[in-house]
Amino acid sequence: MNWTMAARAERMNPSFIREILKVTERPGIISFAGGLPSPKTFPIAEVNAAVTKILTEDGEAALQYATSEGYSPLREAVAKMLPWDVSPDQVLITTGSQQGLDLIAKILIDKDSIIWVESPTYLGAVQAFTPMEPRVVSVACDDDGLDVELLEVQLKNTPADQKPRFLYLLPNFQNPTGRTMPESRRAKLSVLAKAYGLCLVEDNPYGDLWFDQEPPDTLTSRNPEGTIYLGSFSKILAPGLRLGFMVLPSVLYPKMLQAKQAADLHTPSLNQRVLYELLHSDFIPKHKPSIRALYKSQLEAMLGALEREMPATVTWNKPIGGMFLWLTLPKHIQSQALLHKAVEQGIAFVPGAAFYANESETEHNKLRLSFVTASVEQINKGIAILAKCIADEDGFQPTRE
Amino acid sequence: MNWTMAARAERMNPSFIREILKVTERPGIISFAGGLPSPKTFPIAEVNAAVTKILTEDGEAALQYATSEGYSPLREAVAKMLPWDVSPDQVLITTGSQQGLDLIAKILIDKDSIIWVESPTYLGAVQAFTPMEPRVVSVACDDDGLDVELLEVQLKNTPADQKPRFLYLLPNFQNPTGRTMPESRRAKLSVLAKAYGLCLVEDNPYGDLWFDQEPPDTLTSRNPEGTIYLGSFSKILAPGLRLGFMVLPSVLYPKMLQAKQAADLHTPSLNQRVLYELLHSDFIPKHKPSIRALYKSQLEAMLGALEREMPATVTWNKPIGGMFLWLTLPKHIQSQALLHKAVEQGIAFVPGAAFYANESETEHNKLRLSFVTASVEQINKGIAILAKCIADEDGFQPTRE
Repeated sequence: MNWTMAARAERMNPSFIREILKVTERPGIISFAGGLPSPKTFPIAEVNAAVTKILTEDGEAALQYATSEGYSPLREAVAKMLPWDVSPDQVLITTGSQQGLDLIAKILIDKDSIIWVESPTYLGAVQAFTPMEPRVVSVACDDDGLDVELLEVQLKNTPADQKPRFLYLLPNFQNPTGRTMPESRRAKLSVLAKAYGLCLVEDNPYGDLWFDQEPPDTLTSRNPEGTIYLGSFSKILAPGLRLGFMVLPSVLYPKMLQAKQAADLHTPSLNQRVLYELLHSDFIPKHKPSIRALYKSQLEAMLGALEREMPATVTWNKPIGGMFLWLTLPKHIQSQALLHKAVEQGIAFVPGAAFYANESETEHNKLRLSFVTASVEQINKGIAILAKCIADEDGFQPTRE
Repeated sequence: MNWTMAARAERMNPSFIREILKVTERPGIISFAGGLPSPKTFPIAEVNAAVTKILTEDGEAALQYATSEGYSPLREAVAKMLPWDVSPDQVLITTGSQQGLDLIAKILIDKDSIIWVESPTYLGAVQAFTPMEPRVVSVACDDDGLDVELLEVQLKNTPADQKPRFLYLLPNFQNPTGRTMPESRRAKLSVLAKAYGLCLVEDNPYGDLWFDQEPPDTLTSRNPEGTIYLGSFSKILAPGLRLGFMVLPSVLYPKMLQAKQAADLHTPSLNQRVLYELLHSDFIPKHKPSIRALYKSQLEAMLGALEREMPATVTWNKPIGGMFLWLTLPKHIQSQALLHKAVEQGIAFVPGAAFYANESETEHNKLRLSFVTASVEQINKGIAILAKCIADEDGFQPTRE
């Protein structure tokens, strides 16, 4: 049979991470690869109690078709939860925040539209944008995220016909690097965005996972009509329920809603109501500190193990929240080659190359380590093995750069 | 702020049905408009028991991220459930079968690609296809669905550069008409599709809702590599869980999977496992006959009320399954104008015009009646009121056609 696929299908490629995750499912492997929240944090009993309450009290509605905007009381609870002035009318409940990225692609990207992203950036966003065939351009970043001085230069030098549809960024505990944009940069970015009419997409799945101090205010709170905000309950409730949301500028809401309706009619009603129960009963606000404490102790274990085990040629950052840290190998070691050897020794991670939108910017000596899925014991054992793999590679190199 | 929307967003328009459904949410209205399954059929206690079992036995996995293909035991159960030879490797679990339509649009439709649909057809499919900007061409239909003789002529007369990417159709108890394609037409369509290399998308959300006799074999079973099959659990379990599936030709599976991953990573794990429990325990197979019996009695009530109440100038079909029937008004009565008067009297339905892909084919004297959501008492009352509205309209017309 002669199926003819759309041109965009050509551009879509299997997720590198997905392929790695398959390897890491092998029994006995210690994985620092996946972005899986620790299942210890999943409130299994509370979810079960919420389901029973909902099905007992309002089972027919919870199992019926529902409005595409989302469950009204949940939209209100989400608006109330956010620390800036949000109307429930701006909230669109999505089937995970990944769906928000898909809707953004449909509504805002034409073929060859330019979009700006951080370098490196969240791979899943690039995968969601790619089917609409944008030209993805990176903006300069350093250990504090987006470099706003260089952004200003880039904005000045961008001709009107090269203006991006939006700049996509994760200011808090970024995936993959774990880095966070400080207040000074956010303030400057906000000023620049308004001055140049630069639309922003602020993705904030990890924002609640801060360790000692809340991150600075969101970009959206500084310019709600110029920013799309993406939120997730995958990290503070459970990813398997697929619950996220968008906070939308009013001019975009109707079209995003139509795209949502065409995509899956609505996010599962029962799941939305479970989330509402757990927000309404104050369970989620009370649950967050225990996740933060666990992830902080996991990070400390990993930082300790890295200090103890890694060769002096290896460096890494110290995230102030989230799930990931970013490790820099000596320049002559390619993290993809290292992965093959590490997997042989039972250790998995994601090579940094997976997270760059364009080959020309790719740094091959970076890797992402998740510190939240493995146990402390596994972290200690796994980092020691990984350090040995790196030392072996390093030793084979006769000269240092 | 200068948000620039994609050209495709221009093409997307609010669902007419969605607007009607808002009206029908007014208290006291008797609605024949929505495609809502009867909530009486929702197995609330069984869903609750399944959730408790899953969360007790395997809660961490049920709340964690999962593979994009779907829960493996569920894919196996779906393959086994289908009455033709299906490998679990062909099954992709979707967030409702609506999502399958979205994935098809992304992978198979370029801008200006031609696709063929029945006339009238499922509005949600047109809404899912529209963002990818196809040219939607109708194929001739009558009371038995697709007219295969005219299709053959159309195939013969279609130049190579006008060949459709696929023909989308609902052979069983079609939405909106309730009509069913007989075996002879399916056999002929299958021969034609193979001879002309016509790819098919077979949407079968209502197939289990037959009343006295199973519908003829699916088109997919006759040519699996030339047909995409869309299945749904919204009508035999509950729509609020958002559970559907695709059975895919092997050549399409990898790209559909990538599109699925980019769209929402995966369908909610807990929901998939609930469905698996209810399939595995044989609950769903045992549940189907009770839904069929209920819907058959509802149809009979509606047919009885129509016989009793409607003016002689009004005709309708007698579906052999599903949720809808299709009513034809005298040609001078426009169903959209009638709707306004009916809503004033507390009755809602969907005007047929909502279901035509192109204005030029639209028949304005048709309307869709759902017989499954309203109670028998409401059906009797509502059809009497609707008949009076029609008689009033009819009376105002001085001459008959």
